[in-house]
Amino acid sequence: MVHAFFDPAQAAAFNAAASKKDSQFEVRYFPLHGLGNITRMLLASSGAKFTNFNPEDWAALKPEAPFGVMPLLKETTSDGTVIQIAESDAIERYLSKKFGYYGDNIFEETLIDTFVSSDNDIMNKIFGFIMLKDAEQKAEAKEKALQGPVANWVKNHELHLQNNGANGHYVGNKHTLADFKTAQLISIIQGFSGEDLISEKLTPALIKVRATVDKIPSLAAWRATDEWKAFADRNKAALGF
Amino acid sequence: MVHAFFDPAQAAAFNAAASKKDSQFEVRYFPLHGLGNITRMLLASSGAKFTNFNPEDWAALKPEAPFGVMPLLKETTSDGTVIQIAESDAIERYLSKKFGYYGDNIFEETLIDTFVSSDNDIMNKIFGFIMLKDAEQKAEAKEKALQGPVANWVKNHELHLQNNGANGHYVGNKHTLADFKTAQLISIIQGFSGEDLISEKLTPALIKVRATVDKIPSLAAWRATDEWKAFADRNKAALGF
Repeated sequence: MVHAFFDPAQAAAFNAAASKKDSQFEVRYFPLHGLGNITRMLLASSGAKFTNFNPEDWAALKPEAPFGVMPLLKETTSDGTVIQIAESDAIERYLSKKFGYYGDNIFEETLIDTFVSSDNDIMNKIFGFIMLKDAEQKAEAKEKALQGPVANWVKNHELHLQNNGANGHYVGNKHTLADFKTAQLISIIQGFSGEDLISEKLTPALIKVRATVDKIPSLAAWRATDEWKAFADRNKAALGF
Repeated sequence: MVHAFFDPAQAAAFNAAASKKDSQFEVRYFPLHGLGNITRMLLASSGAKFTNFNPEDWAALKPEAPFGVMPLLKETTSDGTVIQIAESDAIERYLSKKFGYYGDNIFEETLIDTFVSSDNDIMNKIFGFIMLKDAEQKAEAKEKALQGPVANWVKNHELHLQNNGANGHYVGNKHTLADFKTAQLISIIQGFSGEDLISEKLTPALIKVRATVDKIPSLAAWRATDEWKAFADRNKAALGF
């Protein structure tokens, strides 16, 4: 039997649902930020109604999941259509298209893809040392990543943001997926390196991206909830920040 | 000065170039498959005219590159417009949109994003152990990755491909970016595990994806060139297959 998620028979209903902005969303993930963070940021920033479902027994639900992984996004439209999406990258792209965070033409889309890809590359390099168990190896790999690719990322992104007028955005004067991804990455890099690589003085344009994202009222409201704070506590316990 | 690549002043020219299919392309990368492989597969499969430029002195060109990394794609349209794209993921998405490998609607696009994201995740897990220097640790991490996430990927992708009729495609009856990414990933997984995880007997639908991609005449022609074989030799020297 075809998993409902992949069933071509639902194509028309899916395409109709994708254009609706008044849906109700459920984010199924562990009770921490992790790979669910950008999805929740996109939903909160766009003012969408969403709830979080943190399965107590993920092992029992895992076999039903399209790839056996979370996060999973469930969308219920105002007319009752239900669709699901797996894989954080696919969820983020779907929501960005729906809520206008993916650019207005292929030039903007390609720029956004480029910055997002560059951000993902750095996230993977950071995961590379986070996952190491041996403390000495981890410290060495962390230093190497921070001084090499991370420092290179900081330099190049600061330059391109300066070229866009240091207005807190990568593309024009609007929020795109690239802004959200970078705002998250700045938090993570600062978590590991304090103000050594990214600071108001060293990289004002990068700092502006994060500040501009932080200022979105509906996102700030989500971050003021007890639920968000509980997720942050879990992240802090795992990563130390 | 704004890097030409990111300059908003080129938006109209870029958008016009993106719709043209008779352009001439240059792929700037090291003389091996690596991160340039999917880009070259997309160009060859679509019958596009492309050349490879393998800088002898990459260090000298690196500071000019948008993020100091390759691959880079240069496109020259028949009317002389020149555009550039950086980051393999952005290049692959741009070419997929241009040559019809990215789906006809948001349902198809989201499915493709989902499969591509799942493929990228496994590629990152494989890079995770390839990069380890200590032989014992590498062997242990390789076994763990192959028996865990890679085996899980094989199981789920085989299932979804079977559900699509085991016709060699993820979406409908046409080639999409997901087919190319998976065809490459199959080669890499088989390179590490022979026929233990992927074989005609164990996973006929996955094997069919690779066979269907291999059958594209213009792709087969590119793979018969001395240049392609030289890239394959370099890959073999680095990875052993």
